[in-house]
This record gives sequence, structure tokens and C-alpha cells, in this order.
Amino acid sequence: MPATPSPGRVGDVRRQNLALVLAGIQGNSGATRAQLAAESGLTKASVSSIVTDLLESGLVRETSITRDGERGRPGTGLVLNPARGALAAEINVDYLAVGVLDFAGELAFHETVERHNRGSLPSDILPLLVAMAQRAATQAAGDGVELLGGELTVPGLVDTERNVVLAAPNLGWADVGLSEELPRLLPAAPFGVTLSNEANGAALAELWFGHGDRFPDFLYISGEVGVGGGLVIDSRLFAGPHGHAGEIGHVVVHPDGPLCACGGHGCLETFAGQDAIYSAAGIHQDVATKHMEYLLSRLADGDWSAVSAVEQAGHYLGIAIASTARVANISAVVLGGHFAVLEEWIAPALRRSLDHHAPGLIPEGNLAFSGLGQTGALRGAAATAVRRILSQAYELIP
Amino acid sequence: MPATPSPGRVGDVRRQNLALVLAGIQGNSGATRAQLAAESGLTKASVSSIVTDLLESGLVRETSITRDGERGRPGTGLVLNPARGALAAEINVDYLAVGVLDFAGELAFHETVERHNRGSLPSDILPLLVAMAQRAATQAAGDGVELLGGELTVPGLVDTERNVVLAAPNLGWADVGLSEELPRLLPAAPFGVTLSNEANGAALAELWFGHGDRFPDFLYISGEVGVGGGLVIDSRLFAGPHGHAGEIGHVVVHPDGPLCACGGHGCLETFAGQDAIYSAAGIHQDVATKHMEYLLSRLADGDWSAVSAVEQAGHYLGIAIASTARVANISAVVLGGHFAVLEEWIAPALRRSLDHHAPGLIPEGNLAFSGLGQTGALRGAAATAVRRILSQAYELIP
Repeated sequence: MPATPSPGRVGDVRRQNLALVLAGIQGNSGATRAQLAAESGLTKASVSSIVTDLLESGLVRETSITRDGERGRPGTGLVLNPARGALAAEINVDYLAVGVLDFAGELAFHETVERHNRGSLPSDILPLLVAMAQRAATQAAGDGVELLGGELTVPGLVDTERNVVLAAPNLGWADVGLSEELPRLLPAAPFGVTLSNEANGAALAELWFGHGDRFPDFLYISGEVGVGGGLVIDSRLFAGPHGHAGEIGHVVVHPDGPLCACGGHGCLETFAGQDAIYSAAGIHQDVATKHMEYLLSRLADGDWSAVSAVEQAGHYLGIAIASTARVANISAVVLGGHFAVLEEWIAPALRRSLDHHAPGLIPEGNLAFSGLGQTGALRGAAATAVRRILSQAYELIP
Repeated sequence: MPATPSPGRVGDVRRQNLALVLAGIQGNSGATRAQLAAESGLTKASVSSIVTDLLESGLVRETSITRDGERGRPGTGLVLNPARGALAAEINVDYLAVGVLDFAGELAFHETVERHNRGSLPSDILPLLVAMAQRAATQAAGDGVELLGGELTVPGLVDTERNVVLAAPNLGWADVGLSEELPRLLPAAPFGVTLSNEANGAALAELWFGHGDRFPDFLYISGEVGVGGGLVIDSRLFAGPHGHAGEIGHVVVHPDGPLCACGGHGCLETFAGQDAIYSAAGIHQDVATKHMEYLLSRLADGDWSAVSAVEQAGHYLGIAIASTARVANISAVVLGGHFAVLEEWIAPALRRSLDHHAPGLIPEGNLAFSGLGQTGALRGAAATAVRRILSQAYELIP
């Protein structure tokens, strides 16, 4: 598995030029060889030679293009090959999911299975996820998409170098090594499977497929059973010195707040995580399995305890956003997961709280809700895998 | 004033090599030409030629060295010229200060004048500061130190490109342009005077002269009338997308907290700023001018209201540190200003609060108090000016 470059196959300069041309195709789908040469500063001969290699590797394919507003006969453009793709797998507290993203950026397939994973051992969960990954790969193969690599994303802090889940308190996991398990998700894939944090993946999905076109700098907040966060600064994930920046779920929002799964007290998650909202709304874990649908129906009925539970979550979200935005110097926020589902009820309380605690910090138009739905983290993880594969593409060039 | 490079004097490659050699001398004071060549990868001839220019510019001078453990006759080393220096000037809420840092890193001169600057116009303050800067320059000249540039540091958010104080709520300043005023602080200096944030300067002082040798990543917290912060990540200031990251003073620590000077509510500053502590201790602004000395004497007497005011500040500091460390992924903290003065009384409450709100986040040995005293911000600002001058040193090479 070529996770690290194997030296001596393609020279450094050619490797760099290959990366330039691939980035050109990724950034400008349908670009001609001449355009790629002009953008990259390479000679046309050099671009043509690299494109020949890329076509042979299967990463890229030709397409005939006729562009509006351009004169002359249609030329031959180059696109990332939609018959190649990456797998994403997600373990969350109350579901497992897999998805396939093709190189054209389409989520070609995804499957979510509800399951209570709190307290489950990795050895309970991984076989289920491997079976789901196999179904996804079979489905992808049937659609003519070959999976070259993948990413597993989890709701916790991860060490990406050693493939260890350092702490996922809502799963009950601490220091769980997955080096042996990851390859089983995609045994044949030449670029293997890496590990990532769910909120970071969802933040990157928002950058690449969502509100990222409006905001070069934003805080993404992931609402699940846990509350996660990812900071995008200058259109890149800001990971911090140890890779765990943006953990807004454990920003303290009340000095006398309750015990959190992380061991601290008064964290945002204890007021705005899914379980916290259900509990404040009087919805007990055994009453309904479709808690969110039940909550939404009660909100629609104007039920007081449901409305006030969601408003309380919005109030504390405002406090945590104020604090986080001051620290990271961010002026835009995108909310996903259940916060996006609850937008109608949570947004006014959140706005009031922000205006009270930090007026002017997040302007009106800069508070956005994700439109990516439940597949945000999956898409982000798969797109990260695609980028990793493209950055290691020289491995496929003989 | 060569604030921006004037092209066409020294070629780009030579400029780069000059910077390499200067950085070598700065990082390894007393290095020989041979050592500088080895470290930089340049030829000895190239280093010698650059050193000749640097000697002529006055930025560098020779010193004879005899190193322990090295054989042979003593060689000639190179050091930054201690007869060159930079000025720092500071406007704070209750004092004005100036200082001179020579290129050897010594604070050769500093002067602090107590003054209530809250609500003072820049036109009231700047003439006083110009007079102090003139005294400093005269003193420096008497000591044989020529001041090549400087930095003015203020307790507020600054736009360093346009030389504007965007917001310094404790001074009552908003959108105050200082482009005309800055040069008056050092009219003859070839590298002019720039503007910076006080807490960022103090954080850099801590990095270069304080606990930075232990922590490559830390949060610096500046305790003055306002509470400021600076984030050092990977031994560099992390300024954030707009240059204002690390503003811990306005992290929200209580959902129902009082109005803050920033317009928000419940900010750390409203519990842990100097005025907040004095007020909670029952020390009114008109009772004593030496508030801190009075507070310390009452603490020494075990006065209940004084002790509980400081403990409350420690409690809320712990909350704000927990939140900030989660967001920025930091595991070390250095406290300066009045927090360092009050260490004995504030540290236990702060530690308890951290252990309650975020156990394990900031390990015991990673909670440090600054030893730099009141001159931290001055030293940081002056050292930043020295670095800026060295980075523009090619301006002095004919």
C-alpha cells in the first residue's frame, strides 16, 4: 500500500509537474492541454507527455468540449475519470455509514444503518462496517467505478500518523488502534484507508461542496450526539499543533454546568448535543427510536418543552460561537447535523445570544446552515481521500 | 522610510543569501564565517562577501571568540551590533512606556509614566509619548546605540497594514488612524515605526525571552485593565485570518455575565481584568491610586473580599483557558501582567477550575507565570522591530 512515496520511480521534477497538471484538471474540469500548459507554465510538449501517462493510469480521461463563448471547432478536454472513486466510512454514535465519491465529485452511492454504538467495541463494529464497505465496492464496481482508496471518519480525536482513535467519549473509546482494521475496509485499493475526525471531514465538505464558496474562513459546527467543530482558515483546515483544533463541543458555556462525557463540566455538548436536547425536551431514550422525528413533530405542534429545549441549545451555541470566533478570529459560521435540521427553531435564539454576547462579531449573512444533510461528513472524508490519491498519483505512473 | 522594499538595489538571490547569513548570526551569536557557510549552505566566499557588506552597514560586528571544547587558536566571530537598537512605545490604560532594545537583546533603557488614558484622545497622548521617545533616543545615543526603527503597541485590535487602531475599548478608541503620528516617535530612523497589539507583543516576548524555550505552542494571557491574549503555535504568533486571534479577554465565561467594554456580556475581562478585581474586592477607583499595592497588602492580610475577588478571577480564567485551549488545540499557558503579580493567590483557584472544567487539558507543569514583569510587551514590541529591521537589512546595503 503506497501510503508513503516509494522513491526512484518518477523523478522529483516530473512528480511536481504531474501534480501541477492534475491540480489544473481538478480545478478546471475539461481544460485542454493548451490551457493546462498556460496555467501551469509548463511546455505543451511536457503537458502532453504527462497527460499521456495520466490517461494510461486511468486517473484522467478525455472529453470533447464545446464551450460557450469560445470560437472555433470543439477541442479535447481532460477531466478526472468518473470511473475512479474513493470510499468513505463513518462510525457515529447512533449510526454506521459508507459512501462512494467518484472523481467527478458525485456521491455515487451511500448507505446508512442506524445502530447504537455507544459502548460497542471496535471488534463489534468493524465487521459490520467491512460488510457495508464490501456492498459499496460491489455496487461501485457494478457502476463501473474502481475504488482506489478511502477514509474512515469517527466522532473523536484521532492520531492520523499512527491510526489511533485517541478519545471518542461518546463511543466510549480511548486509545483504540485501527492500523490492522483500516485495510480490511478496502483490501484491494492501492492507496489504502486512512483515519479522520468526523467534524473535520464535514468542515472540508462544506469548504468544497457547500458554503466554502462564500467564506474563505469559517467555523463549521457538527451537531450529532456529540458536538464537533472544524476551523477553515484561508480555505484550508486549521488543525492546530496536535491536529485537534476547533473542538467547540467542549468550549465551556456555563461555569456551573453539568458533567460532560469528556470529563469536564459545562461544555457546549451538555446543552446542545442531541441527547442533551432530547433530555431537556423530556424525550427519553426509551420512548422513541426516531427521536429527531418525534422532536420535530412536537416542535411543529408548538410544544413548550420542545421549543424551550431547542432555544436553550441555540442560546448556548451563541455563547460557544462568540468564544470560538474571538479565539480563532473567525467571522463566519456554518452549522450542520441536527443544527441544520432544527434551523427554523434554533436560529432566532442563536442570533439573539450572539447579539447579546458578542454584537457585530458574526454579521447576519455570515451565520449559515449546511445544505449537505447527513452525508456531509461522508463526502468530506471521501473527497479528502480523492485529494490524497491525486497527490500520490505518481505511484500509478510506471 | 523604506517600509517596503525598493527594487533594483540588491538582487533577489543576494537578498535571500543576506537574510540567511543574518538569521545565522542572530540564531548563533558569535558564529564564524566558516560556520555560517556550513549552516547556510552558501560558499565561504559568498558568506565573506556578504559579511563585508553587513559589517559596513553597521548591523553586524566582529568579536574574537575562544570556545570551550574547540581546539586551535581563537577565531573571529560575528554578532549583531549591540550599538544598534530599536525603540518600543506602549500606550496602556493606566500608563505610557518606552524602551530601547539593543541588537544584543538587552533592554538598554525603559521608562514608565503612570497616567489615566481612558477616554484620552490620541492627540492628548501622542505628544507625551513623543517626548518620552525623544528622551529614550537621547539616552540611547549617549550610550552609543543608534535606533533604526520601532514599534508602538496598544491594548486593542490593530490594522497593521493601514496603521489604524480598530478598537481599543478600554481606551475608548475606535478606528483611530496613526499613520502621521507613528513617524514622529522616531523621525530619523531609517526603518520607521509600526503598530502592534500589546498582548501579541507580550506573547512574542515570552516566546523569545521567557517560557518559549519550554513551549513551542502556548497561549499567552496579558492581564492589564483589559485582558488580552496571544497564541503561539509552532514557535510563531498565530494571528488568525484578520490578525486578531487569541482574544481570550472576550471569551464568554458566564451566560448571564455583566456588560463588557466590548459591547458583549459575560466576557472574561469583566471578571478578571484589573478593574473587575478591584471592584469585586471593594477597592474603588478613588480610594487609592496604587490599587495593585493596596490589593496586595490586603491579600497579605488575608482580607476575605480581596482573596475571594482574586479567586473568582482565577475561577473564570480557568473556564476561558479551557475553552481557548480546546479551540486552538493548545496545552500550555503563560500568564503575565497582574496575573503574574497575583500568582500566589490566583494559581490555586485557576488550577481547580481547570481541573473541573477540562481535566487533563493543561498538565500541571504547563501552567506558567511570566517572569518578564511589566516590560514584557515593550521587549516583545522592540524585538519584533529588530526582526523587521533585519528582514529589511538589504535596504542598508548600497
